[in-house]
Amino acid sequence: MFAHPTTVRLHDTDAAGVIYFASLLRMAHEAFEAALENAGLHLGDVLATGEILTPVVHAEADYLAPLRLSDRVRIEVHADRVGDTSFSISYRFVKQSDQVAAHAKTVHVAIDRTNGSKKTLPDALRSLLGRL
Amino acid sequence: MFAHPTTVRLHDTDAAGVIYFASLLRMAHEAFEAALENAGLHLGDVLATGEILTPVVHAEADYLAPLRLSDRVRIEVHADRVGDTSFSISYRFVKQSDQVAAHAKTVHVAIDRTNGSKKTLPDALRSLLGRL
Amino acid sequence: MFAHPTTVRLHDTDAAGVIYFASLLRMAHEAFEAALENAGLHLGDVLATGEILTPVVHAEADYLAPLRLSDRVRIEVHADRVGDTSFSISYRFVKQSDQVAAHAKTVHVAIDRTNGSKKTLPDALRSLLGRL
Amino acid sequence: MFAHPTTVRLHDTDAAGVIYFASLLRMAHEAFEAALENAGLHLGDVLATGEILTPVVHAEADYLAPLRLSDRVRIEVHADRVGDTSFSISYRFVKQSDQVAAHAKTVHVAIDRTNGSKKTLPDALRSLLGRL
Repeated sequence: MFAHPTTVRLHDTDAAGVIYFASLLRMAHEAFEAALENAGLHLGDVLATGEILTPVVHAEADYLAPLRLSDRVRIEVHADRVGDTSFSISYRFVKQSDQVAAHAKTVHVAIDRTNGSKKTLPDALRSLLGRL
Repeated sequence: MFAHPTTVRLHDTDAAGVIYFASLLRMAHEAFEAALENAGLHLGDVLATGEILTPVVHAEADYLAPLRLSDRVRIEVHADRVGDTSFSISYRFVKQSDQVAAHAKTVHVAIDRTNGSKKTLPDALRSLLGRL
Repeated sequence: MFAHPTTVRLHDTDAAGVIYFASLLRMAHEAFEAALENAGLHLGDVLATGEILTPVVHAEADYLAPLRLSDRVRIEVHADRVGDTSFSISYRFVKQSDQVAAHAKTVHVAIDRTNGSKKTLPDALRSLLGRL
Repeated sequence: MFAHPTTVRLHDTDAAGVIYFASLLRMAHEAFEAALENAGLHLGDVLATGEILTPVVHAEADYLAPLRLSDRVRIEVHADRVGDTSFSISYRFVKQSDQVAAHAKTVHVAIDRTNGSKKTLPDALRSLLGRL
């Protein structure tokens, strides 16, 4: 499990005064990128030179309590399933009060970057995800 | 059912060359706003003067085929459940080739704008959603 | 001159109740993409196969009046300078009341996609911009 | 002067493989929010209870070198003019190599939150900006 501290910024909010729902999924993916980096894997390197990409094929979020501008949030990142050709990442958004404000999940599939066909997850990525 | 024509713009894409996954949910909500407007309801008026707000409490998306920069997409908006205090909207992203590129869904709950407590959906909104 | 009609969406706004300042520049670029498309040039094709890219090297915006959720806006797009290796696009955001809500400008430079060196604007692009 | 460390995330990039131009201005404002917080001022509190708002009335950016996915950037935030009713913030985006990748600037005006009329900057804000 990896914890990514962040803060709700003006751009993340909308005219209803709380976080815009889709911004939460963007924040989740930023936490995932930070988790990969923490394990030594930079998504920029993967996109630049990798043979395998892992696009999101499913995403979901449940909003339990409002997140507001300047709220500090800890996003807990956990790999809850690592399969042959796909994996699932779950996210918990925890406020400073320890209240859980949201859950989110992304499902990724490994594909060949040149033709888009399904591929087996590289061992290095599988091992890295196993530690999340 | 309401159909919202749109185009994938540079901002919607990412360095992997396709639409960023969370941008698809933003496009879904834009289509929902357009559907409400088409029925005479402007979200801006609701936020400015309405007693009831309908925040998203759940969102999900399935990505079936890549959407790329400049792709023209028809987002079909359908209210698939209208309950006492909540409703669900489903979205189909259809390419010009009639290929379905993605599905999405948002679930909304009616709340009192002053204290956040659950409220019954106003009749006018229920009737409007019934026509989607 | 090209006019792009659009509407301020929930995602464009922030917790101050008006459009988020950087979203206006995104809307400007969307209007530019629509102007190019109207002239037969799809940015997606340029990125996929073009030898020359035209990244933004300068952007600016002046905010004259608040834009709010659901406001309908006409973005007027005008090429105000087309040079040898660069061009400038100006944008006027006009509300339904004909009030000008904002001005914006983007400056683009033509570069070789493989090595980033400055290039002469292709004649087809120069001619197209000349009609904006 | 305040320095805000950040990383270019997938959402910040576009299909051209570099940072989307308007995302840089969003990152600048995030750095400004972080600078205010570092000085004890939370924008969320200002929006919730403040009598004075300070919207952006002008923004600009110059892009000197490409920023790519996973690039680490230090955003230097400096208040370069603090007037009676307005102030200017400048931003320098510095890569790990110490290369300056971009400059940006935002100009803010103090207004009364109820009627939008120009106001004198509160002493506390003026003093805080003076230390940036």
